[in-house]
Amino acid sequence: MLNTILPNNTPAYNGLAETWARMHRFGHLESIAGWDQAANMPPKGNEARAAALAEVAALLHRMQTDAQLPGQMQLAEQEALSDHQRANLREMRRQWQGSNALPESLVQRQKMATSRCEHAWRRQRPANDWHGFLGNFREVLSLAREEAERLSQQSGMPKYDALMDRFEPGMTCAQVDAVFGEVRQWLPGLIQQVLAKQTRDKPIQPVGPFALPAQRQLCEQAMRLLGFDFEAGRLDVSTHPFCGGVPEDVRMTTRFCSDDFLGSLMGTVHETGHGRYEQNLPREWLGQPVADARSMALHESQSLSFEMQLGAHPGFVRRIAPLVSQAFGAQPAFEPDNLLLLMTRVKPGLIRVDADEVTYAAHIILRYEIEKPLIEGEIEAEDIPALWDAKMMELLGLDTRGNFKDGPLQDVHWPEALFGYFPCYSLGAMYAAQWFAAMRRALPTLDQRLEAGDFSPVFDWLRTNIWTQASRWTTDELARRASGELLNPAHLKAHLQARYL
Amino acid sequence: MLNTILPNNTPAYNGLAETWARMHRFGHLESIAGWDQAANMPPKGNEARAAALAEVAALLHRMQTDAQLPGQMQLAEQEALSDHQRANLREMRRQWQGSNALPESLVQRQKMATSRCEHAWRRQRPANDWHGFLGNFREVLSLAREEAERLSQQSGMPKYDALMDRFEPGMTCAQVDAVFGEVRQWLPGLIQQVLAKQTRDKPIQPVGPFALPAQRQLCEQAMRLLGFDFEAGRLDVSTHPFCGGVPEDVRMTTRFCSDDFLGSLMGTVHETGHGRYEQNLPREWLGQPVADARSMALHESQSLSFEMQLGAHPGFVRRIAPLVSQAFGAQPAFEPDNLLLLMTRVKPGLIRVDADEVTYAAHIILRYEIEKPLIEGEIEAEDIPALWDAKMMELLGLDTRGNFKDGPLQDVHWPEALFGYFPCYSLGAMYAAQWFAAMRRALPTLDQRLEAGDFSPVFDWLRTNIWTQASRWTTDELARRASGELLNPAHLKAHLQARYL
Repeated sequence: MLNTILPNNTPAYNGLAETWARMHRFGHLESIAGWDQAANMPPKGNEARAAALAEVAALLHRMQTDAQLPGQMQLAEQEALSDHQRANLREMRRQWQGSNALPESLVQRQKMATSRCEHAWRRQRPANDWHGFLGNFREVLSLAREEAERLSQQSGMPKYDALMDRFEPGMTCAQVDAVFGEVRQWLPGLIQQVLAKQTRDKPIQPVGPFALPAQRQLCEQAMRLLGFDFEAGRLDVSTHPFCGGVPEDVRMTTRFCSDDFLGSLMGTVHETGHGRYEQNLPREWLGQPVADARSMALHESQSLSFEMQLGAHPGFVRRIAPLVSQAFGAQPAFEPDNLLLLMTRVKPGLIRVDADEVTYAAHIILRYEIEKPLIEGEIEAEDIPALWDAKMMELLGLDTRGNFKDGPLQDVHWPEALFGYFPCYSLGAMYAAQWFAAMRRALPTLDQRLEAGDFSPVFDWLRTNIWTQASRWTTDELARRASGELLNPAHLKAHLQARYL
Repeated sequence: MLNTILPNNTPAYNGLAETWARMHRFGHLESIAGWDQAANMPPKGNEARAAALAEVAALLHRMQTDAQLPGQMQLAEQEALSDHQRANLREMRRQWQGSNALPESLVQRQKMATSRCEHAWRRQRPANDWHGFLGNFREVLSLAREEAERLSQQSGMPKYDALMDRFEPGMTCAQVDAVFGEVRQWLPGLIQQVLAKQTRDKPIQPVGPFALPAQRQLCEQAMRLLGFDFEAGRLDVSTHPFCGGVPEDVRMTTRFCSDDFLGSLMGTVHETGHGRYEQNLPREWLGQPVADARSMALHESQSLSFEMQLGAHPGFVRRIAPLVSQAFGAQPAFEPDNLLLLMTRVKPGLIRVDADEVTYAAHIILRYEIEKPLIEGEIEAEDIPALWDAKMMELLGLDTRGNFKDGPLQDVHWPEALFGYFPCYSLGAMYAAQWFAAMRRALPTLDQRLEAGDFSPVFDWLRTNIWTQASRWTTDELARRASGELLNPAHLKAHLQARYL
């Protein structure tokens, strides 16, 4: 049953909408069972859970590749659809293409290769075993190239573009090259300037341990400050924090560490951005592709709007500081100015997921500049370490030679064949900066409002321009409507200069 | 994929086994999502969850009523099956008959009528509104009679037998009449004797409040004492305690009340009996009907073996008493002898779910003696209150006139049309007493072992004779193999006399 009332004169469209609603309902079970697997499931449940999840995945695959869908979509094109329905049909077609692009045999071979590679990688990474990793990774890469080749032939896109399109529809290498090329110009210099400036800062370190129940309460308070609806979601604990569940019931997870509260706090602020996007997708269209979040970069633009733009804003830090003292008892380190110093500390490091807001893009540009030629066949897997070393030195001034585990072995993306995913992280940071620039143009007093602890203008703007728009427009059109321009990295530069120099 | 390796010469059977394995995997998702709904789900998730659960229920119904199944089952009958496979095929056929016995239109009308009746009952019960309840209940009853009539025509069983068979396969009214008739002879007299004897006892009441985290820890300790495998299950909180999940991952729930710890403790001991049955079903057959728990009475015989036979045994109470003191601080009430007095206190009351072990059967006999003629058409819904009053007076000496909310409105079973379910509770208590009598015959030192805090003989016996046997045999055959005789209420009588007189 659809939430929207369907007219009688669009039978083909209605049938498609019902099919997608059914897939959405099975996806609901898949999502909750997946969250449960990470947050609740005891170890002996794993085999049965994996079998159950595989069964529903197979069912969804059968539904997505139903041979009747193309004909139905063609019929629906001829029907008298509203603009919204037409956008929905566009997204259905995109999803259908994604599900039907590859022969089943390739999908199966990829599943086996990535599963083997990822499984071995868990041991190989701590063992710094690059050579062992290569043994499996060559097959993963070879299949990814085959995939890229097929997707490219079908879509007419260049090969890496075709892979990236799975995560960031419409984004091209031409655009990423231009954007990252520009960032590459100013980033290393900016990092040096910030480092020089921060030598003067002497942040006081908080003294732990920090009791886990108090940390949990603090995180929930932060989520409430950020407008998370606990009537439509929860916060739980898992090894790898994520935002799962369904829009009506968002399941966020975090992890706690007794000698560091800032990590879980800011991680929770980050996931809350994802969570509010999901909670505010257009309710009347839920279950249809047009109501899905737009893209990976757009999703990341929400988590980074929360974590970086808002979370490290002095106005937010001033609101959260007394809650920190309340949670753990007063400490000099919990003074707002000191918390702000801690949150905005810049330090080039080897690990992407630990990187600060300023150096983060360097990690992404490095990966993009390696995985793109890798897919295009211009370099081979063996060439990665030398390129990695050179680029780490060039971008962050760090020597990584021989340290594979904190180098090319650090991410799960490559063993999982998620080529084309990395750029989304930095594009998200750029979009986030762009949204806040647009907010400030629309509301010149934004910073005073935030300083006063009133975050509602941010939520209102994001709700109107991003959350409720879901997949109504292409990403470019969404960006244009929201901010008056396409993706523009100048806003990230301006943001970093304003905050860090 | 089945756990057992299938031979090549039984293609029809193999196909059926694969179908049931797939249903089991979808059932896994249904079960975990259902547990989550009760234990975790925030309120705004309800509509989407209900839609998702309805979708998978509809899928399972389509699979269970697939028109090809009867032909496949007929072919499989001709194949060279092992005894175990033949038992599995028998259970498949039973499930198939259950799913295909009723026309879809009747199922739909029943769903609507019970849903309306149950929903209104939630308000009508506290309002003592018997008249309002009757308005909906007449339709529920009329449809249940239609159901019983159809099932009776198909199976040749009497009407109430046909309804009871859904929960307790093979059980007949002839058998229940004989058993309950016998209990009726001695129960009221026994209750009076026990009450007279207990006037001498002066149990000391525990002094609350009892902190919820300590209660939770105590319950988990009790579960560990009782052998619950926390690697294959969890304990959580829900409004109505239940034992859900899947055999590989049992999800038990309880509820806590700060001024009473014994309720949640003994409730948890009860659910642990269900949980261990599920956790110890035969692993190599999981996913096939032959690996399902045998019946409702058998399941209840496990929870009551734990709660009543073992949980109120002096040996168990002596093990749990120091844990109670550890949880809440020492109190005179926590001395083992006093805890035992509290746990075995007998008091005739109006509410079935609050009833003690001695008076419980009276509540069941009363319901059975009303719902059986109700289904057979010998009485009408309007006749219930007068019968209820008369039987409560006769069996327990209590006046319930005009008190509908603590009378016929107290249970969810009738609004839900679960006619034929009630007897299982008392049959379970009888089977539990029968199992312990068999254990004592096999191991005359059982009570010394239990007194010494060694409960393993109980677990070993139940594992061998009940848990791992699952649905391998009919209930009668299982009882005969386990205890050398069919259901025999004399063991419950002997147990109650031994413990209470």
